[in-house]
Amino acid sequence: MAGSASSGSKTVLALAIGDPAGIGPELAAKLAADAAVRGAAELIIVGDRRVFDRACGIAGVSPDLPTARDDQAAPAATYFVDLGHLDPDSIKVGVASREGGAFALANYRTCLKLAASGRAGAVCFTPFNKAANRMAHPPYDDEISYTEGVLGIDVEASEFNILEGLWNARVTSHVPLSAVAALIKRDAVLRRIRLTDTMLRGSGIAKPRIAVAGLNPHAGDGGNFGHEDEAEILPAVRDAIAEGIEADGPFPPDTVFLRAKRGDFDAVLTMYHDQGQIAMKLLGFDHGVTLLAGFPFPICTPAHGSAYDIAGKGIANLGASRAALLLAARMAG
Amino acid sequence: MAGSASSGSKTVLALAIGDPAGIGPELAAKLAADAAVRGAAELIIVGDRRVFDRACGIAGVSPDLPTARDDQAAPAATYFVDLGHLDPDSIKVGVASREGGAFALANYRTCLKLAASGRAGAVCFTPFNKAANRMAHPPYDDEISYTEGVLGIDVEASEFNILEGLWNARVTSHVPLSAVAALIKRDAVLRRIRLTDTMLRGSGIAKPRIAVAGLNPHAGDGGNFGHEDEAEILPAVRDAIAEGIEADGPFPPDTVFLRAKRGDFDAVLTMYHDQGQIAMKLLGFDHGVTLLAGFPFPICTPAHGSAYDIAGKGIANLGASRAALLLAARMAG
Repeated sequence: MAGSASSGSKTVLALAIGDPAGIGPELAAKLAADAAVRGAAELIIVGDRRVFDRACGIAGVSPDLPTARDDQAAPAATYFVDLGHLDPDSIKVGVASREGGAFALANYRTCLKLAASGRAGAVCFTPFNKAANRMAHPPYDDEISYTEGVLGIDVEASEFNILEGLWNARVTSHVPLSAVAALIKRDAVLRRIRLTDTMLRGSGIAKPRIAVAGLNPHAGDGGNFGHEDEAEILPAVRDAIAEGIEADGPFPPDTVFLRAKRGDFDAVLTMYHDQGQIAMKLLGFDHGVTLLAGFPFPICTPAHGSAYDIAGKGIANLGASRAALLLAARMAG
Repeated sequence: MAGSASSGSKTVLALAIGDPAGIGPELAAKLAADAAVRGAAELIIVGDRRVFDRACGIAGVSPDLPTARDDQAAPAATYFVDLGHLDPDSIKVGVASREGGAFALANYRTCLKLAASGRAGAVCFTPFNKAANRMAHPPYDDEISYTEGVLGIDVEASEFNILEGLWNARVTSHVPLSAVAALIKRDAVLRRIRLTDTMLRGSGIAKPRIAVAGLNPHAGDGGNFGHEDEAEILPAVRDAIAEGIEADGPFPPDTVFLRAKRGDFDAVLTMYHDQGQIAMKLLGFDHGVTLLAGFPFPICTPAHGSAYDIAGKGIANLGASRAALLLAARMAG
């Protein structure tokens, strides 16, 4: 019912259909018909009903999904919000366009409002195409800054990458490498350790084991290759431990993921974008989930992109999208 | 014969026994008895004969290896140089010591002299222990700077990591992350592309395909996250192409190794230590080979360490050491 983020015992997830020239619509169709997802949450799927219905045909699914306009009361626990803003014939499969970007961002904004107003407990979206989003909204940089703008809040949000029980968070993200070291401060590291701990607990891990990566080669090698590991990161780890968080480190950046891979940790906190992304992508993160954390509600999306090369064929793998929605349901629940 | 780096058609390799408390002695013993190594090169193994003979017992091998003192003429094409400087009873297996470090470094210095004088065409060593080397020689930083000191030359040497046909070289290495960006200059990148090309050709790859990684997230994302990718790295790649080198890039750092892993490139040139090491270690580089390039002769060693936990048991895997010697033989030949 309108005004409630849970329906009976189930969480409500707002799901935005992503770029319409990619696999986003067919993934949304498959999600609406997926037994695991439907068993875990009620869905409010936001898009254009014509785009969605065509995608159901491509995906070979026929989900039971009544339609409402954005401003109407909910017709059922799980339903489709039809913004009526895109004729599927106007989109060429596999081509980024301004119209496609505008469609995806409008769906996403509506979902953010549904969650901000309490009608949904979490937001999910099928893949965006960054080029299309920039055509529609030239200042578009990444999902975090866009979301801050829509919500009108300035939080310390952060991206988490999750692959089969291994979480990766980072202290800095989309900044030049030359700017990273100056941002690695004890307080900033501690805040991200806390956020990591909070998010993992929220996902159901009672006592998360958090590995904190060093910044420099060999984690500084005792100060020979940089001082931040000893002067900033180590004190932050000690602060976190004093707060009862099971943190450890700083570890040499080039072996910490080997240890995480064998199960020593639930999460690795990295200091900069590629320190974690190089490892996570080699570990198969394309099948993983991205969580935007730090907002008033969780935001989850599959880690892979809009896959223009296979769009419209009905062959897109649902695994990462399903994992994204199941994580969102756990965290919102 | 003294004074020649090849004996008949075979290259001569000088092999230093590494840290005596680790697996270095038993690896040297196994190498001396290995058919593939003996078929590819003549060996001058440098150490203490007592240490070596004990290791032969541990390894269960009985290589035919006459002994000479350092200053004597070679008694055979393959032989042992006995420096007589370490009683094996004075070393505790699995414990780093000043004596152990002094032993490994003395062996290495002798090998460097054998190669510098033309009696060997390449130098190899079984694993050092850095802590032991520092006890013996406090200024010890890494193999490159130590080698420069011994040879009395200041070359632009660089470490290459090689795993099953995939090479990784880097523009910067053991420097703080805060110092990296300022070192990524067009000339420096171009020189390393050239060195990479030269080394791969030397190893027998006729037309090496070299991927050059970017510095910043998403290789700068068109200048949004740093300028070095476009201002320094891209011009260097173009310079290299103009010289006939098959270089490409800059590629986003977090996906270039996915492409290399599937065989798109023979080498990835990375901009800093962990950019390559995170990837190579996840790909299994512990079974790979490290090449110190830029000296008048190649220097090769297995990538793994001295493995104190399994030393003295005869179970150390010979794979990486064998690969190191076979690479040295190809490059010196």
